[in-house]
Amino acid sequence: MNEIIILRLKQIFDSNRVLTSRTDRMTYSYDASFATQLNPSEPEVVVIPQTTDEVSECVKLANEFRVPLYPRGAGTGQTGGAVPVKGGIVMDLSKMNRILEIDHQNMQVIIEPGVVQADLNNALKKYNLRFPPDPGSAKMCTIGGMVSNNSSGLRAVKYGVTRTYVLGLEVVLPTGDVIVTGGEKSKALKSVSGFDLSHLMIGSEGTLGIVTKLRLKILPLPETRGIVLASFLKLEDAGMAVNATFRSGLQPSAIEIMDVNCIKAANMMKPVLQLPDDNEALLIFEVDGGQDEVTSQVMRLSQVVSEYSHYVKFSNEPDECQALWEARQIVGAAVGLLNPGGFRVYGGEDICVPISKLPEVLRSIHNLADKYGIICGIYGHVGDGNLHTGPVIKLNNKVEVENVQKMIDEIHHLAIEMEGTTTAEHGVGIVRAEYMEKEHGPALELMRAIKRTMDPNNILNPGKMALPN
Amino acid sequence: MNEIIILRLKQIFDSNRVLTSRTDRMTYSYDASFATQLNPSEPEVVVIPQTTDEVSECVKLANEFRVPLYPRGAGTGQTGGAVPVKGGIVMDLSKMNRILEIDHQNMQVIIEPGVVQADLNNALKKYNLRFPPDPGSAKMCTIGGMVSNNSSGLRAVKYGVTRTYVLGLEVVLPTGDVIVTGGEKSKALKSVSGFDLSHLMIGSEGTLGIVTKLRLKILPLPETRGIVLASFLKLEDAGMAVNATFRSGLQPSAIEIMDVNCIKAANMMKPVLQLPDDNEALLIFEVDGGQDEVTSQVMRLSQVVSEYSHYVKFSNEPDECQALWEARQIVGAAVGLLNPGGFRVYGGEDICVPISKLPEVLRSIHNLADKYGIICGIYGHVGDGNLHTGPVIKLNNKVEVENVQKMIDEIHHLAIEMEGTTTAEHGVGIVRAEYMEKEHGPALELMRAIKRTMDPNNILNPGKMALPN
Repeated sequence: MNEIIILRLKQIFDSNRVLTSRTDRMTYSYDASFATQLNPSEPEVVVIPQTTDEVSECVKLANEFRVPLYPRGAGTGQTGGAVPVKGGIVMDLSKMNRILEIDHQNMQVIIEPGVVQADLNNALKKYNLRFPPDPGSAKMCTIGGMVSNNSSGLRAVKYGVTRTYVLGLEVVLPTGDVIVTGGEKSKALKSVSGFDLSHLMIGSEGTLGIVTKLRLKILPLPETRGIVLASFLKLEDAGMAVNATFRSGLQPSAIEIMDVNCIKAANMMKPVLQLPDDNEALLIFEVDGGQDEVTSQVMRLSQVVSEYSHYVKFSNEPDECQALWEARQIVGAAVGLLNPGGFRVYGGEDICVPISKLPEVLRSIHNLADKYGIICGIYGHVGDGNLHTGPVIKLNNKVEVENVQKMIDEIHHLAIEMEGTTTAEHGVGIVRAEYMEKEHGPALELMRAIKRTMDPNNILNPGKMALPN
Repeated sequence: MNEIIILRLKQIFDSNRVLTSRTDRMTYSYDASFATQLNPSEPEVVVIPQTTDEVSECVKLANEFRVPLYPRGAGTGQTGGAVPVKGGIVMDLSKMNRILEIDHQNMQVIIEPGVVQADLNNALKKYNLRFPPDPGSAKMCTIGGMVSNNSSGLRAVKYGVTRTYVLGLEVVLPTGDVIVTGGEKSKALKSVSGFDLSHLMIGSEGTLGIVTKLRLKILPLPETRGIVLASFLKLEDAGMAVNATFRSGLQPSAIEIMDVNCIKAANMMKPVLQLPDDNEALLIFEVDGGQDEVTSQVMRLSQVVSEYSHYVKFSNEPDECQALWEARQIVGAAVGLLNPGGFRVYGGEDICVPISKLPEVLRSIHNLADKYGIICGIYGHVGDGNLHTGPVIKLNNKVEVENVQKMIDEIHHLAIEMEGTTTAEHGVGIVRAEYMEKEHGPALELMRAIKRTMDPNNILNPGKMALPN
């Protein structure tokens, strides 16, 4: 990279926040996606801003020299969304991590983008409040990253996705100009004034701007929760139980599914669970609210579910709830045991299909796994139709490495063909760019036009989401 | 208007769906806003499409001849958003009103934009489902209009705004091209694939496209509800009661406020209510859920609230609930009684401020009313900070007509200065265009750039939202 650029970056940032060593650059060359772990891309330089001004100055410099600029949070993404596929500058925003204000009276917080989800929730606990979106990576991921990907998690079925909680954003545009969305000085909880630019930014994966400040809505912490765990001989029975739950007027805070392989894996990791492992599916429901509400909901729910299941356990006691919930909690790690010494691959891991098609799609994925000789467990947020497929392969087995990529490709096509989407909460990045045309048709052209308008030099996060190259 | 255009329109539509008579054009010259009732603007022609193709053809024609085109739903808007301030064509979408699919298994519906909110909910009832956003005009307003304005209503405090329920849209762009947002063939309940163009369209008030089909998320109907009504000597006590409610972990489905004038008006209209009319504020809480949950929530809530109020009534019995709820239900009509023979003015009627500033803002609006000699009642969705001010004037009194407009202007400025917004759920249209710069600062330029990109000939709904003229 041009020495002048490095020099200029050192004028914007302190020298110790401009990283150029090989080791540092390697650290930023991949994320949690299989694709970038196979093919990492190193940046030429990494910068670590502490202020909005620094971010803005750096974006202006990138425009001046036409250098690609890649914003990055904690690097927990599974799509290569923050990986510098065209080299250039990576901007690590994880050190802009101050909680600027907890305004509990007005049910909102103002934070910097590098705040980790769990850190915010720890700070909110003493006010009996919380920021609900809860991705699996909540203990590590930054909220800036969550907004860029419109992340969600287990409880989206009741509490909605990250989008639901964004009231306003300070954004450095691809030109370096700074705007505030949702009202320049607003602390309103609702507004329909003007185009809602917050919602254009949310989920744009750092291609339309860099978020430097966030105003987020928060909610009361529910008093307590209850769990209903049910096992089903057939996938179709599990599907009917989910439908019956909604029809009954119940609104669980989570409805999770585990397939037969995940059930086996959970039993391997925690034999005490003793889940019936000849069943095709396990559902775990969580309900939350006040003590009386939860007791009542647990009873109603277990009644509804028991029409389809021969094995139902439930509780509204915290310790028992934790024990029942454990199967779901360990499943991400447990699938690794299905192929001892194997590597859990992230790819095709985030499809979402209509709830009614879940049994068929689950069977199809199992068939694909058989076809390619890949071991995998499937779990996910069944109340939304969101399935996480977890293939486990041996990295030194070339055939498996090739086959798992073919399987991933087929899973993505399957999702679109079954009236679903390739990604419910993880994003597009580089790994799903090739499906954008098939999924969106002519709408993709409008996305590209907006990108060209806002980022005429194509500086921000180029090479992602099938946007202009 | 050019005779050729009329001729071409008659080729696109049947002749009886191309209206040019003076009477017809007058009908489309105003909406519920005071501004357009004082200064209506007639279109040159009105067209009534029945298909997406017709909409697209008409948009292409408007581009060819550079004629302004104004999409319109039921005309219940309060901002002049659908009024043809530059003449041209009004497109009345209220006849595209078919419910195309109720997919209860997948918790979604597909409808045309002219479906009335209440009609959709009537159709959903037999499945025990509903479309939650509930504006005051629910019995008349079209859902296309709700999406264009991102409407909400009483229950947004628990169930969110219209935006929350939009899964995908078929949109005729300002060029006449047709796209589908949220996945071309998708029926997924969650997706983060690509820029979420649905959310760019929502709240854009028909300036970026015409919605011709909607895919909406629906929810189970709650089993029952409970009401807690409480009266407060001081506004500040009401504010503290709202805050204490959230702090206690309760999530009411509505929290409504009525000021002293609204209380008096309600007593006038329904003397049987016997509300304490020397109190500064009345709060009405609604909770919903299963029978046991509601009973428990009503008890907890009335306990929390009674710390700040000497007058609390509550019930979980349907008939009693209806009686308690009535005060809120009649308030919109009742404010008219404050000035017998007067006219209820819509303008400055939709501000939203941080919850903590509500008492101060309510007092300030009362002071403004005194200053200008205007009678008004204030009510609204206090859980969101959204206040509806209802001035009642004599239309034949020129001083009142002038003064109410000055008062409206001051209310809008007050909202922005109190860290609020000029509009929480009604929109900008023409009546709030002048506050856009003050509210959004540099972000307004980005809105304008997006408008120019998507509508290069400035065909769709020109003259609104401070966009390019």
